[in-house]
Amino acid sequence: MSTQVIVLNGGSSSGKSGIARCLQSILPDPWLTFGVDSLIEAMPRSSAVVIGPDGEVSAGPDFRALEDAWIQGVAAMARAGARIIVDEVFLGGAESQGRWLTALAGLHVLWVGVRCDSEVAAGREMARGDRVRGMAAKQAELVHQGVRYDLEVDTTATEAVRCARTIAAFLTTRSS
Amino acid sequence: MSTQVIVLNGGSSSGKSGIARCLQSILPDPWLTFGVDSLIEAMPRSSAVVIGPDGEVSAGPDFRALEDAWIQGVAAMARAGARIIVDEVFLGGAESQGRWLTALAGLHVLWVGVRCDSEVAAGREMARGDRVRGMAAKQAELVHQGVRYDLEVDTTATEAVRCARTIAAFLTTRSS
Amino acid sequence: MSTQVIVLNGGSSSGKSGIARCLQSILPDPWLTFGVDSLIEAMPRSSAVVIGPDGEVSAGPDFRALEDAWIQGVAAMARAGARIIVDEVFLGGAESQGRWLTALAGLHVLWVGVRCDSEVAAGREMARGDRVRGMAAKQAELVHQGVRYDLEVDTTATEAVRCARTIAAFLTTRSS
Amino acid sequence: MSTQVIVLNGGSSSGKSGIARCLQSILPDPWLTFGVDSLIEAMPRSSAVVIGPDGEVSAGPDFRALEDAWIQGVAAMARAGARIIVDEVFLGGAESQGRWLTALAGLHVLWVGVRCDSEVAAGREMARGDRVRGMAAKQAELVHQGVRYDLEVDTTATEAVRCARTIAAFLTTRSS
Repeated sequence: MSTQVIVLNGGSSSGKSGIARCLQSILPDPWLTFGVDSLIEAMPRSSAVVIGPDGEVSAGPDFRALEDAWIQGVAAMARAGARIIVDEVFLGGAESQGRWLTALAGLHVLWVGVRCDSEVAAGREMARGDRVRGMAAKQAELVHQGVRYDLEVDTTATEAVRCARTIAAFLTTRSS
Repeated sequence: MSTQVIVLNGGSSSGKSGIARCLQSILPDPWLTFGVDSLIEAMPRSSAVVIGPDGEVSAGPDFRALEDAWIQGVAAMARAGARIIVDEVFLGGAESQGRWLTALAGLHVLWVGVRCDSEVAAGREMARGDRVRGMAAKQAELVHQGVRYDLEVDTTATEAVRCARTIAAFLTTRSS
Repeated sequence: MSTQVIVLNGGSSSGKSGIARCLQSILPDPWLTFGVDSLIEAMPRSSAVVIGPDGEVSAGPDFRALEDAWIQGVAAMARAGARIIVDEVFLGGAESQGRWLTALAGLHVLWVGVRCDSEVAAGREMARGDRVRGMAAKQAELVHQGVRYDLEVDTTATEAVRCARTIAAFLTTRSS
Repeated sequence: MSTQVIVLNGGSSSGKSGIARCLQSILPDPWLTFGVDSLIEAMPRSSAVVIGPDGEVSAGPDFRALEDAWIQGVAAMARAGARIIVDEVFLGGAESQGRWLTALAGLHVLWVGVRCDSEVAAGREMARGDRVRGMAAKQAELVHQGVRYDLEVDTTATEAVRCARTIAAFLTTRSS
């Protein structure tokens, strides 16, 4: 059966959002993209994450409860027939994946790890100019700890569009 | 029982998003805001709405199917315990409301009409500078046709924060 | 002779940028808009203003030197024939105006004060959601201290587009 | 004598803005960045460029006059003592450079060509998601025609931060 959810997990500035946009362009069917950035955008400021001066992310108890409900909602969209790309940062590693695994039970999910060399990601963070410095380096390894993937891509020396093509090819092979 | 979903419906540049942000600041509990703008942001470009030179909005068949699944998902977030503000533009009037009514069945919903004089909304559209001109005027009356509300606010001569306080007061009264 | 520079001065969230965009739409000739927001956008982060938790703005010594050169440049654009709208926040009141007066010497300038009731501006700051809270209230009176205007508008109960029409009418009268 | 202006010229999605931001972080002195994007932001919509469905850029006669005055102003900022990075797209090739050469006469300028393989730039354009498709490919070669540089960098396989370091090293060597 065809894939219903693609979960892209990677650290800040690893290139997930670019891959998601390329997938939306390349894949023949329409896919909706949701991720931690759009969740934070939906939150009241007082509940959203606080980013320390060195890029350390901390979230209050409200954040977790809101995120749990949001994950349920994203899963419900997939069950209602929308193809969904999840653009995520598993700050809790395997534990974060576990929460999604539970919510997405019964759906056909493709788990994709988006890796990027820590130093390269830090350079891209500097080039973007809209992120607190230090997040990229802090998250580069952390978010993959204990996480299991169907496929891994690495943006260190590979363009986002090419990573998206790899994922698209994998989807086609798997569903056939 | 306390309200789980607040639906704000109004035309483009009527001030819904400002009211939603003020509600998020004013209300004691955390509320998530989702709306047509965040839905369009989540879509591939080719599925999203096309806005004509005079502000006429048209959406393809993909849009409707994606929107339906998204509405189910937003309802699921509310059922999972998150308080939700929906920031919507009922281009189909009563028919649009009907789709939300079905999806939100069993939830405690507050339906709020956000009105704004057509000419004033057009002036604010000009002042924003990020919208195609003509949407505000076209939608000012259209989106309210046949829609039933628990409460209506009018931003023509009332600030967003004051409208938000009116809604917050109504919530308190209703739930007590 | 016709006006070459329109300086709009007002506190944060007083509505200057909306008036500037309406002026660009309403006035028959093309006008360029520059302001403190575009200056900060042009700066390295380390030189830009630091906004404290209560909306207190502080700027380092680099900021002042860069700003001085930028003011010279904006004046040079007007001398080179471009009509310019300056969207400014005179945190130094009369002293800030003095710096612009010197730089704009010999040009035909319209000085416009953009006033807004402090509490109303604070409400709009909340509705915008993209500003640190407290700036609007702190700046509402401060920026007008000792500043002399050709014209004042007040957005407390008057829409931006209407304020822009008042300014446009004043320009026409003055130049005839 | 030390460099006063760095002109980065390259096609859309070639990575100029990322290099500019990295330069602002890396260089010891504060540098202001201005470019065609900030110029368009300053213009009334009706004067700004029109981008066709295939990424073809066309500009009205107002655009040229406003741009000429803006170039004078940016040069004046440098003469007033600010170090300036110009983030430009020479759609007219050598003719565009000629206009800047005239305006910057007497200043110490570093001319940097920012190259990127056309297909790679088109892929990044897709990944960004905020540009009309086709601009990157159309401009990749065009903007360099007849333009003379002190230094060229190529982002096809080199990160923006590394290109910025190359430019920074060149600046140090040249001024010593």
